[in-house]
Amino acid sequence: MEAPVRVSKGLDGVSVGESRISWVGGETGDLVYRGYDVRELVPGIPYESVAHLLLFGEPPSSDPSPEVVDALRRHRTVRPEIEKVVDSLPPDLPPLEALRTILSVLGDGSFAYPPTIDQGLRLIAETPVLLARYVRRSTRAAPVRPNDELSHAANYLWMLSGKIPDRAKVAALEGYLDLLADHGMNASTFVLRIAISTQSDLISAATGALGTLKGPVHGGAPSRVSEMLDAIGTPSRAEDWIADRLARREVLYGFGHRAYKTEDPRAVILHEIARRVADPARLELAEQVERVALDSLRRAKPNARLYTNVEYYSAVVLEAVGLPPGLFTPTFAVARTAGWAAHALEQASDNRLIRPDIEYVGPAPGRKWPRALAGHRPGA
Amino acid sequence: MEAPVRVSKGLDGVSVGESRISWVGGETGDLVYRGYDVRELVPGIPYESVAHLLLFGEPPSSDPSPEVVDALRRHRTVRPEIEKVVDSLPPDLPPLEALRTILSVLGDGSFAYPPTIDQGLRLIAETPVLLARYVRRSTRAAPVRPNDELSHAANYLWMLSGKIPDRAKVAALEGYLDLLADHGMNASTFVLRIAISTQSDLISAATGALGTLKGPVHGGAPSRVSEMLDAIGTPSRAEDWIADRLARREVLYGFGHRAYKTEDPRAVILHEIARRVADPARLELAEQVERVALDSLRRAKPNARLYTNVEYYSAVVLEAVGLPPGLFTPTFAVARTAGWAAHALEQASDNRLIRPDIEYVGPAPGRKWPRALAGHRPGA
Repeated sequence: MEAPVRVSKGLDGVSVGESRISWVGGETGDLVYRGYDVRELVPGIPYESVAHLLLFGEPPSSDPSPEVVDALRRHRTVRPEIEKVVDSLPPDLPPLEALRTILSVLGDGSFAYPPTIDQGLRLIAETPVLLARYVRRSTRAAPVRPNDELSHAANYLWMLSGKIPDRAKVAALEGYLDLLADHGMNASTFVLRIAISTQSDLISAATGALGTLKGPVHGGAPSRVSEMLDAIGTPSRAEDWIADRLARREVLYGFGHRAYKTEDPRAVILHEIARRVADPARLELAEQVERVALDSLRRAKPNARLYTNVEYYSAVVLEAVGLPPGLFTPTFAVARTAGWAAHALEQASDNRLIRPDIEYVGPAPGRKWPRALAGHRPGA
Repeated sequence: MEAPVRVSKGLDGVSVGESRISWVGGETGDLVYRGYDVRELVPGIPYESVAHLLLFGEPPSSDPSPEVVDALRRHRTVRPEIEKVVDSLPPDLPPLEALRTILSVLGDGSFAYPPTIDQGLRLIAETPVLLARYVRRSTRAAPVRPNDELSHAANYLWMLSGKIPDRAKVAALEGYLDLLADHGMNASTFVLRIAISTQSDLISAATGALGTLKGPVHGGAPSRVSEMLDAIGTPSRAEDWIADRLARREVLYGFGHRAYKTEDPRAVILHEIARRVADPARLELAEQVERVALDSLRRAKPNARLYTNVEYYSAVVLEAVGLPPGLFTPTFAVARTAGWAAHALEQASDNRLIRPDIEYVGPAPGRKWPRALAGHRPGA
């Protein structure tokens, strides 16, 4: 047997295959979906069309994609048996704990391997419906039925609030959903592809992906940006607060990314969106904190090439759209369902079990179980 | 930026780090937990002691491990809020779909990163309690309270059946649980470690692992061994049935493994256990089908080094213990919770985000969104 190839345990710089879905240009600051730069798509291209592009590989025949619009409408009605489980969840769960179970509950045997485009569209459609249902119930509000006249982005806000949302907010959320819809290989997408590689189903794979996105090092931290801004309070306090934080060697959330060694294009576009919809005082605070944080971090680590990451202005935009911090990562997941579905389809199209090795460095084989114990061994 | 290291998409022979938990000797046919060969442990060592060995790194002070016995008893009582969700699940779910949701529901915010030994023991204790509750409810039977006088293996059978199980069956199940408790790196354990690498919690990670174990290429196939034996029916039909199956290029379940290029030690020990507990006619059928299948497969692929894998005699043993085929993979998961907990602890002890790259081979960047569509772009 050949000696194993050893790679870094973080798999930094290790390419685990080929993909036609999206390109992350970490050196150049690019994010491209099937040949289309996200700057070409945002603002303006409906999420339904971005989902179409990711799932079908080409733009739709018109905007918003008629096929996707139609499928999302059809799949917004969830079986009452599944609604019943969602309604039985403890109302005080952290939203990500609830969303993991919500995704799992969607898997009732009807998502059989291999994944299909229609299964992907079901995942995209049903996730926000059940998430909104849970969120409303946790505030003792009645669920709001999906509104078929509304876009995916607008309908999400409608189901959460029961109010027809403001156009500017819908546009901001739509930009966010477009920008977060896919991002090459990353920890949650990798988990999804490993699950599909065992010929498991799309829901199992997406549930695993959500459980991975949940970690604060991946997608679970944008709410901490809001908490940080709240704690700082006013622009004039930024210097002292950040200096104190860094002196205590604590993390500043919203800066640095494994892939990007320059500006993350999503951060740049989300900053533009924030300029249009955020409360001016909040925006001023966020911009001042960003300046001070980057200056301080770069002084502390001159070679680290640290930039503002996607979470920072995600937090400012999602706040402005009216979402509470607890819904930031769940909304990231709502966006990413399109990318997850596309990666599941691609993985299944030329599938092979993903199963690495690990080097055993524990005690040498041949140890003898203490005779004094010897379990209930026959004859012992 | 350095060029990415390219590895095979299945990560065959790629070592993704170091572990002190278990060693899979694929060339020599060994499986070793922290220095103890599984042949040293099975039969005879209680699952509680194997879980102790995996979690604490050393054997307990006596068999069965007093610390584990005590913790498992304490954690067998599940919060009524969680029982309520389990009781709200549709009663006709495939058991693995139900188990994925059951694992997820355990995560109510009380499993915070980093994972702890006590969290691991909760996972080990609560999984069979809720699985048994669901299984009984799906047959309209009342739940059976855990029996603190019984071992983990015996209590599992008790909660499923409501009857004090036969000693020989408990010993057979205990051997199975010991043998399946860990297995180095594999797809589901890898998923668990990736989830922990984002600083997500043990329940999210275990839910993702279960969703990966579910795939028939990983852990989801032992029930198909039973179906195959049922379809063949008698030893004399084995030749014709297998020849026909191979002529149609269909898979024979229970043979071949990515890691083992010789006999899988688990398969050998499970065969011995089957000799002790299986119905003689079923055993004879299984042995005849195994002989014919291996002969046929080896004739068809002389260089493939194909052996009986762990699933084959797992099916025969679990049948003999009285479990229906739908519970084979869930019972695999019940065994593996110990290994998952150990790997979560190890990953967290020296953590780093696992985030590979993928090579983009899609359309070149720079495509222009069709002007005829152009979404609702401002100014378009």
